[in-house]
Amino acid sequence: MTRRQQILETAGDLFRRQGYHATSMREIARNVRLQGSSLYAHIHSKEELLAAIVEEAADAFVAAAGGVDRTLPPRERLRQLARAHLQVMCDELPHATVFFHEWSHLPQPLRSELVQRRDAYQAHFSEVVRAGVADGSFTVEDPALATLFVLSALNWTYQWLDPHGRLDLDALAQRYADMLLLGLGDASTAAPSASGHGG
Amino acid sequence: MTRRQQILETAGDLFRRQGYHATSMREIARNVRLQGSSLYAHIHSKEELLAAIVEEAADAFVAAAGGVDRTLPPRERLRQLARAHLQVMCDELPHATVFFHEWSHLPQPLRSELVQRRDAYQAHFSEVVRAGVADGSFTVEDPALATLFVLSALNWTYQWLDPHGRLDLDALAQRYADMLLLGLGDASTAAPSASGHGG
Repeated sequence: MTRRQQILETAGDLFRRQGYHATSMREIARNVRLQGSSLYAHIHSKEELLAAIVEEAADAFVAAAGGVDRTLPPRERLRQLARAHLQVMCDELPHATVFFHEWSHLPQPLRSELVQRRDAYQAHFSEVVRAGVADGSFTVEDPALATLFVLSALNWTYQWLDPHGRLDLDALAQRYADMLLLGLGDASTAAPSASGHGG
Repeated sequence: MTRRQQILETAGDLFRRQGYHATSMREIARNVRLQGSSLYAHIHSKEELLAAIVEEAADAFVAAAGGVDRTLPPRERLRQLARAHLQVMCDELPHATVFFHEWSHLPQPLRSELVQRRDAYQAHFSEVVRAGVADGSFTVEDPALATLFVLSALNWTYQWLDPHGRLDLDALAQRYADMLLLGLGDASTAAPSASGHGG
């Protein structure tokens, strides 16, 4: 890990636990065992740190969704998008938390760039919902609301997800995707009492 | 509206738009057209304002869920809990947003009291999921995860909910609850293509 990466990790962890505004550069320096003046050799400002953390998290989400094959059947594509999302949450929990809490406080033009990336990310989900409605995989009354439903259920996970919790990523992603697919009226994802095991 | 209430509304709106830490007492005073010194006759500190806003939002959620009849069948009880939640979101969007973003930065013992209220609130949802599994209304593999799924889908709505948007509260609550119930494997909530109209 480079010194810069180490500073980002430490800052992300402090921002997550106590908030961006309540964290000082002095505190970050102390936690990476640098003099304040040495810290400034790597990073020019606290805002630069925040921007780097938020962009790293945004890039991770965009890359994960972009890695899912767009030609998959909607049901399988949504399952893989959900898994990719939860994987980023598990891998990048401190940075993802800072991203969700603080991105809107970044200055322009950074904020607009993040909105664009967020929109591009969400487009994967609206695309798959619409594709699933079009080919009959999903039966939703309101595709736009259904997309928000899926994104809401996924995004809020940063509040409770424990990467070392009782479920590993595979089990979590499978059970969570089962509920999302059922919520979209996917009749082929059997409710667990019918099949013994959903998905 | 009392002067204190007016100050809370203004502060809540500023905290929501620019964050608690980035908002000064001077700015709040200017927005309610008070001299800084007059503001302090009503409110002792910015932290007191934050605490009042967050507690008001927490109380609104707890009161709304508490108003739902616990003896209702699980399906109907969950539908009403979801509607109550979305109603508070619509009615109290600025304060609810501040609540979700800032509550964890409040000092003790306030923070512990809020955790207790949050847990009591979430208990309504875990109770109804478990009751629905017990009586066969819902067929979920993992009731604890299903509860988190429902709360996640509901909580994140503060990010996109527009109280003056294309759907009124009734339509929004019905469509959203349909997806939640389907996600819990509620076979009696027909997917919309099967019945023409879900719920």
